[in-house]
Amino acid sequence: MAKGIRLLVLDVLKPHQPMVTELALGLSELDGVDGVNITLVEIDKETENVKITMAGDNLDYDEIVRTIEEFGGVVHSIDMVAAGRKIVEEGETPQDKLEEY
Amino acid sequence: MAKGIRLLVLDVLKPHQPMVTELALGLSELDGVDGVNITLVEIDKETENVKITMAGDNLDYDEIVRTIEEFGGVVHSIDMVAAGRKIVEEGETPQDKLEEY
Amino acid sequence: MAKGIRLLVLDVLKPHQPMVTELALGLSELDGVDGVNITLVEIDKETENVKITMAGDNLDYDEIVRTIEEFGGVVHSIDMVAAGRKIVEEGETPQDKLEEY
Amino acid sequence: MAKGIRLLVLDVLKPHQPMVTELALGLSELDGVDGVNITLVEIDKETENVKITMAGDNLDYDEIVRTIEEFGGVVHSIDMVAAGRKIVEEGETPQDKLEEY
Amino acid sequence: MAKGIRLLVLDVLKPHQPMVTELALGLSELDGVDGVNITLVEIDKETENVKITMAGDNLDYDEIVRTIEEFGGVVHSIDMVAAGRKIVEEGETPQDKLEEY
Amino acid sequence: MAKGIRLLVLDVLKPHQPMVTELALGLSELDGVDGVNITLVEIDKETENVKITMAGDNLDYDEIVRTIEEFGGVVHSIDMVAAGRKIVEEGETPQDKLEEY
Amino acid sequence: MAKGIRLLVLDVLKPHQPMVTELALGLSELDGVDGVNITLVEIDKETENVKITMAGDNLDYDEIVRTIEEFGGVVHSIDMVAAGRKIVEEGETPQDKLEEY
Repeated sequence: MAKGIRLLVLDVLKPHQPMVTELALGLSELDGVDGVNITLVEIDKETENVKITMAGDNLDYDEIVRTIEEFGGVVHSIDMVAAGRKIVEEGETPQDKLEEY
Repeated sequence: MAKGIRLLVLDVLKPHQPMVTELALGLSELDGVDGVNITLVEIDKETENVKITMAGDNLDYDEIVRTIEEFGGVVHSIDMVAAGRKIVEEGETPQDKLEEY
Repeated sequence: MAKGIRLLVLDVLKPHQPMVTELALGLSELDGVDGVNITLVEIDKETENVKITMAGDNLDYDEIVRTIEEFGGVVHSIDMVAAGRKIVEEGETPQDKLEEY
Repeated sequence: MAKGIRLLVLDVLKPHQPMVTELALGLSELDGVDGVNITLVEIDKETENVKITMAGDNLDYDEIVRTIEEFGGVVHSIDMVAAGRKIVEEGETPQDKLEEY
Repeated sequence: MAKGIRLLVLDVLKPHQPMVTELALGLSELDGVDGVNITLVEIDKETENVKITMAGDNLDYDEIVRTIEEFGGVVHSIDMVAAGRKIVEEGETPQDKLEEY
Repeated sequence: MAKGIRLLVLDVLKPHQPMVTELALGLSELDGVDGVNITLVEIDKETENVKITMAGDNLDYDEIVRTIEEFGGVVHSIDMVAAGRKIVEEGETPQDKLEEY
Repeated sequence: MAKGIRLLVLDVLKPHQPMVTELALGLSELDGVDGVNITLVEIDKETENVKITMAGDNLDYDEIVRTIEEFGGVVHSIDMVAAGRKIVEEGETPQDKLEEY
């Protein structure tokens, strides 16, 4: 039965090389990983800020960080994590709108 | 048959350590919990404001608060709770738009 | 066959204690109730404004109001009600946008 | 086979009493009605403006208006009507955006 | 097999009488019509601007216009038409946003 | 197996006559076409700007352009094209929002 | 079992000729490609900025870039990439809204 960490959304800063295609392939081969999505958030002359979303079963956060660092990246923050038998989405409430301002 | 508290959305302030991955794992192991989602709302130098969404069957609010406190967090408010045989979503009405302003 | 009142969305003012988790549990145990959702709309020093959504079959409005009052709350308005064999949603029309302004 | 009027959205002004729960129950018992939804649009000291959505088969508009009037309400406009074998939704087109301004 | 015109969205100006419920019933009885939706866009002292959406198989545009005129209405524009074996929706592209301004 | 061009969104300028209903029927009868949608984007005294969406299998772009021209229209741009075994939608990324401004 | 790169969203600058229909067909014939979507983002006198979305199994990034270049295009950035057994979508978090400003 699926368990442990099931979903991770990471805010990562990385150099342009190695490319996100290589980083995505590298992360997709780790234990328990079902899939990896990397989207470009902002691009600068030497670096790019990307959002990495990973889904799977019993994801190993330390190994994921280590792999990102091997590709030259740094994890700035964990923007979302889901754990448990079921992947639960963030519940939307009227409080969210207040926090935006 | 499922009953009691089925869904909780909590506004929580916590120190950076222990990390949200550890808190999510800790909460996912409590009785009745199907899944836990933690999203980062705001990050400061020493603390982070997170939204914790928990789904399950017969969730034990007091035990959940105790666990969050063991990880150094404080529950600021209960932003949503659902109870009963079925998980009912918040009904959207024309009054919501008025309350936003 | 399901009938009577099937869905209610209530605008309620309540003191902080008893908590919304207790109120949700109390309402979820009434006759005909399938599920209860309580979301926090606004929080003040002594009171909180919540939106209560209840779904079920043949909901008893008077008993629901009585229960909310036993928990110290006051119903300000009925923001939505659905009745009948099927739960019908609010129909959206071009007139809604005009009414927003 | 279903036919005639299948869906009605009415803009109605009514006094606070009888309550929308009673009006919804009254309308839900008319011939051909599958379900009724009443949402509060605006509330004044003595009246409330509500939107009534009714779905069913071969709905009798005159009887519906008569019932609303028995509950003290007045129909201001028919904001939407659907008729026929299938309930067709309003088609969205680029022209809608122009009409908003 | 379904063919010909399958969906029509018409911008129509009509007097208040006959009512939209009568016009919807009249249009729903034409050959090939599965369903009719009429929404109120704007209401004036003597006229109302409505959007008529019709779905079906091999819809006869000329007969539809004739029927609308028999009910006192005038077709201002065809805002959408779909034809063929499958009802195809309008494809959304980045160009739509540019055209809005 | 489906292949070739599967979806086309065209920005077209045309005179008011022949009408969009006739153009939609004309395009729906071409080889490989499953369905055609024409929406009105802007209307002027002598011309109208329409968006034509066509779905099918192995669509023949040149024949489609020729048919549009026979109806008096001119293709201004190809706003979207999809090709291959599966119809792939446009992927939404954080970069889209930047490009809007 | 599906693996490798599964989804690519590319920001590409290309001359008007060859047309996007030809580029879409060319890309759709590469190994592992299930489907290609090209949308027009911006059009200038001599060039057009397009977004290319490709879905498939074990997509070959280098071959895709080579093909785009054979059609006269240049890849400006990889806006999204998904890899692994399952195609994972970008996770939406409250941090996205902050980054927009």
